[in-house]
Amino acid sequence: MKKHNFGAGPSILPQEVFEQSAQACLEIDNSGLSILEISHRSKTFDAILEETFSLIKELLKVPDDYSVLLLQGGANMQFNMIPYNILNDNETADFVETDIWSTKAEEETRLYGKTNIIASSKAQDFTFIPKDFTVDKEAAYLHLTSNNTIYGTEFLEDKQYDIPVVCDMSSDIFSRPVDISKYHLIYAGAQKNLGCAGITLVIIKNEWLGRATRPKSKMWDYSVYAKNNSLYNTPPVFTIYTCLLTLRWLKKLGGLAEMEKRNIAKAALLYKEIDRNSLFKGHAVTEDRSRMNIVFTAKDEKTTADFLEFVKPYNIDGIKGYRTVGGFRASCYNALPIESVQVLVDAMQAFEKR
Amino acid sequence: MKKHNFGAGPSILPQEVFEQSAQACLEIDNSGLSILEISHRSKTFDAILEETFSLIKELLKVPDDYSVLLLQGGANMQFNMIPYNILNDNETADFVETDIWSTKAEEETRLYGKTNIIASSKAQDFTFIPKDFTVDKEAAYLHLTSNNTIYGTEFLEDKQYDIPVVCDMSSDIFSRPVDISKYHLIYAGAQKNLGCAGITLVIIKNEWLGRATRPKSKMWDYSVYAKNNSLYNTPPVFTIYTCLLTLRWLKKLGGLAEMEKRNIAKAALLYKEIDRNSLFKGHAVTEDRSRMNIVFTAKDEKTTADFLEFVKPYNIDGIKGYRTVGGFRASCYNALPIESVQVLVDAMQAFEKR
Repeated sequence: MKKHNFGAGPSILPQEVFEQSAQACLEIDNSGLSILEISHRSKTFDAILEETFSLIKELLKVPDDYSVLLLQGGANMQFNMIPYNILNDNETADFVETDIWSTKAEEETRLYGKTNIIASSKAQDFTFIPKDFTVDKEAAYLHLTSNNTIYGTEFLEDKQYDIPVVCDMSSDIFSRPVDISKYHLIYAGAQKNLGCAGITLVIIKNEWLGRATRPKSKMWDYSVYAKNNSLYNTPPVFTIYTCLLTLRWLKKLGGLAEMEKRNIAKAALLYKEIDRNSLFKGHAVTEDRSRMNIVFTAKDEKTTADFLEFVKPYNIDGIKGYRTVGGFRASCYNALPIESVQVLVDAMQAFEKR
Repeated sequence: MKKHNFGAGPSILPQEVFEQSAQACLEIDNSGLSILEISHRSKTFDAILEETFSLIKELLKVPDDYSVLLLQGGANMQFNMIPYNILNDNETADFVETDIWSTKAEEETRLYGKTNIIASSKAQDFTFIPKDFTVDKEAAYLHLTSNNTIYGTEFLEDKQYDIPVVCDMSSDIFSRPVDISKYHLIYAGAQKNLGCAGITLVIIKNEWLGRATRPKSKMWDYSVYAKNNSLYNTPPVFTIYTCLLTLRWLKKLGGLAEMEKRNIAKAALLYKEIDRNSLFKGHAVTEDRSRMNIVFTAKDEKTTADFLEFVKPYNIDGIKGYRTVGGFRASCYNALPIESVQVLVDAMQAFEKR
C-alpha cells in the first residue's frame, strides 16, 4: 500500500519517476547496461546531461546570460561556496533571516567577508516574512531564503532590489514560474521538487563567475563547473537521471504555470481545513503562508501525539513537525497529488468528530 | 543482452545490486515508500547508514581509533579537503607522482601549504611505481595513489613510512585486504568497487581530526562529518544504499581475501594473454601491473581501431584506452566476472588468428 508522503525532504517524486528509475537500474535505453554502471563520458550520459540542462533552462526560462551548474553537497555546501566565490574579504552581504537555514547561510558567510542581518522574524518564532527593510546599497548582495521549510513561510514575489540578490530556493524551485532575471544567483538542493538527494542546482549570472578574487580550489570554484559543463569530475549519474525524469514529467504536465495552479489548489484545500477545524491552528501569518510546507499545530498541545497516531491507518507519512516548532508539517511538493491532501483533510475532520 | 562492462568508472556493480536497487526504487523494505523519497532522518535510513558503516569497518578491519566518513564530491573534492583539513600553511606534503590524479592532488595542495614531489614516473610515461625514494621526515604527510587508473600500475603493499601516509584508493579499495593502520587517511570515490557515483569514503585516524588550524567552513570540515555520523546535512540516500548492497554482496562472497583471490585470477588470465598474443603488449612494467586496470596497446598502432570494432559482437564495452595512452584499458573491478575476462581473451585470440 503506497503511503501519502508529506515528508519535508527527501520527499515524494512522481510515481512514474520511481518506475522509470527502477527500469534504468536494470537497463538504460536498451544499452545492455544499468544506469548505475555507465560512464559519465558515455554518449548515453551526454544525452542525459544535455536534456537535463535544456529542460531546466526551458522550464525556468533561464536568460542567456546565466550559467546552469550541477554540484554535489546540498544547499549547505552552497552556504560556503557562495561567499567563497562571490564575496571579497572587505565586502558585506545582507541577509533577511526567515528560518534556521538563512541563519546558517549567514554564519558560514562570516568566514569570507562581513555580514549584516537587515531583517529578521526570529523573535516572532519565524511566523512571517519581513518586508519592511532597507538594503545597504554598498553591500555585495542580499541573501534570501524563498521558502522556509521548518516554519512554513514563503516569498512568492520576485522583487527587484538595489543590489544583486542571492536566493536559496531549495524547497520551492519548480513550484511556480520564477523571474530569474531578478536574481544574480539561485541555488537549490534537488531533493524536494527536482530529483532524489545528491545534487544541487546553481543558476548564476555569468558576470558573477570569478567575482571573488581569492585563489580557489577547483572543486569549490563555480567557474570550473561552468567551463566544464558540470563534468569536471564524475557527477552523480543516477541522481541526475532522476532529475531528468522529474523534469520530463513537469513539462508533460504543462510546466511551471500548471504546477503553480496545482500547488495553489492543494495549499488552499489544506489551509481551509486548518482554519475551519476547531482543533488546529496555522503557524504562519496568513499572507506569508507557504504552499510547499504547511505548518500547523494542535490548539491543545496534548493532542499532538494522538493525531500522529490517528493518521496512521490513513497511510499518511511524514507529517510530524520539526522539533523546534512541534505540531505538524504537511509538505505538499509538486509530486504530491491533491488526493493525498484530501486524505489528510478527511483525517483532520474525522479526528475532530471523534 | 547484458554487456561485458570493462569501463574504468563509473563501472560494473554486481547484478544483484542492480536488481535490488531497482526494487528499492519501487519500494524499500515494505515501507510503502520508494528509497528515492524516504527521509534521511527516518528509521529506514538510520538502519541503512548504520549497516553501511558497520560493513565498511568489518570488511576493511578499520581500527577503533579511526573515523569512517561519507562525503560528496568525489576524490577530486578530497584533493582540496585533505590539505584544507590537514596541512598548515607552513608545512610540507610529500607526493609520489604515479598518474595525473596524483599530479592533480599535488596541484590543489599548493593552495594550502608547501608540496614536494619526491618521486615520479612521469618522464617514463607512468609505466612503473617509483620505490626508491626518501621521505622528508619534517613533512606533514606522504601522499600516494595506490592504483593508477589510466596507466595501470598499482601499489600492492601497505608500507610503513617515517611520516603519516595519505592514500587515494579510489580505484582499488575493497579489492584486497588493506592494513589500515599503515595510513592516517584513506579516501576513495565510490564508483568503482563500492557503489554508484555520488559518494566518497574517507577513513581518517582520529588524532588527525582538526589537525590544520585554519578556520573552516562546516561542509569542508572532516570534524563536522565525524561528529554528525556523516548526517550533518542530507546525504545521497540512494547512493549510500547501493554501497550497502555492494558491501553485503562482498561479505556474502567471503570478504576481501576472497575478492583478492578472484582479482588475482582475473588479472593473471588477461596479462597471460597480453604477453602471449603477438599483436598486443602491456603498458606497465610487470612487477607494478594493476589488477584493477589492465592497460595494453596494439604492437601495430594502426590495428587499435580494428580491435575496438572487432570486439563489438562479443558484447564487450568500455575497453578503449584513455586518450593520453591510447590502446586499451580493461578495468576488472570486483564485480566483473572472470567469464567476461575470458570473453575478452577469446576475442584477442580470434583477432590474432584473423
